[in-house]
Amino acid sequence: MTNNVCGTSRIVGCRFTLSVMSDDFVRVILSAIEETDTSKVWKQTDDVSTCIRGRESHVFDVVKAIYVAAAKTGKHVVLNGTFSIGCPGDSEGDVYMTEDDVVLNEEKARDTTFEVSTQFALYPMNTPTYMDIIADQVNVAKEHGTLTGGVHYATRLDGEVRDVFQTLQESFHNAQEQASHVVMTVNVSANSPSKKAN
Amino acid sequence: MTNNVCGTSRIVGCRFTLSVMSDDFVRVILSAIEETDTSKVWKQTDDVSTCIRGRESHVFDVVKAIYVAAAKTGKHVVLNGTFSIGCPGDSEGDVYMTEDDVVLNEEKARDTTFEVSTQFALYPMNTPTYMDIIADQVNVAKEHGTLTGGVHYATRLDGEVRDVFQTLQESFHNAQEQASHVVMTVNVSANSPSKKAN
Repeated sequence: MTNNVCGTSRIVGCRFTLSVMSDDFVRVILSAIEETDTSKVWKQTDDVSTCIRGRESHVFDVVKAIYVAAAKTGKHVVLNGTFSIGCPGDSEGDVYMTEDDVVLNEEKARDTTFEVSTQFALYPMNTPTYMDIIADQVNVAKEHGTLTGGVHYATRLDGEVRDVFQTLQESFHNAQEQASHVVMTVNVSANSPSKKAN
Repeated sequence: MTNNVCGTSRIVGCRFTLSVMSDDFVRVILSAIEETDTSKVWKQTDDVSTCIRGRESHVFDVVKAIYVAAAKTGKHVVLNGTFSIGCPGDSEGDVYMTEDDVVLNEEKARDTTFEVSTQFALYPMNTPTYMDIIADQVNVAKEHGTLTGGVHYATRLDGEVRDVFQTLQESFHNAQEQASHVVMTVNVSANSPSKKAN
């Protein structure tokens, strides 16, 4: 079975749900996607989630840009996503791997700053050293000043949206240098009416 | 480091976000949690997510009950969660492992039926046969009539909420019989205004 074999391509994917806690959620989500330049990534939206695939730089750039565009409305916006590299073995979207690394949305996103609270988890597959790879990434969060603790099944980050996304991208990048197939789940929350836990 | 060692306890955990696409989201979420009997599980809610831990039967029972209570309002409600077993090595909540397997919320949830669309992914850690373990669970979904296809990084399920949750629980249960540490991400969506993809 072809789907039992991990791919050799280093294409990165992110399947995510953007949740907007507002009656106006459809307009906010569609506007956020519309505002974002997705020309360097493979993109597919269905009724459950959106999937972005391409070079690591562009996948993180696009997901961050969509999130920033939605959350800058001030509404409570949550991104739940899974970043993945090294699997499955299909090649759909590989054409986007020939793009250069000039990101398209960074400049616009840079003007918008707000605090986010995040819980994320890394899963390096098929390696007995996976817990060490995960533990090493705590240093990335410390360097960016975003680490605010561990919770069951996840690490917590708090800070400016750009610093948190930078932490996520570097942690993912480092992990995939040590394991071929890496998965990272993220939960990014902005404008929550709930009091911060920490 | 103690957090570098997987636990031997078979305590199951689920960390999830319940997103209600409505101005009224706070009331809907709090009511859903309030309506659910959580006396047989360890429970902690922070500003980003809720974590439920205990015996497999009760964790699935409680997560399903909270979801059903929120989605029966007819609002667009999405559950993003990660089920986990076999890690980390801490023992907090182990006291709940002595509970019996009589679930507390099944009867009430049984009266409420509605369709959900779901994308889920299994990650058996630290085993070279992980792709086979994942592929085997397709049969569980076929038996329950919930399988509606594969998408990048996930398997899609559609059907009555009880059948979809039963598929998720059995898939998770089977996988953890073959791998000590198993993670399962789920995205369950109800009452979406978007047209179904399949």
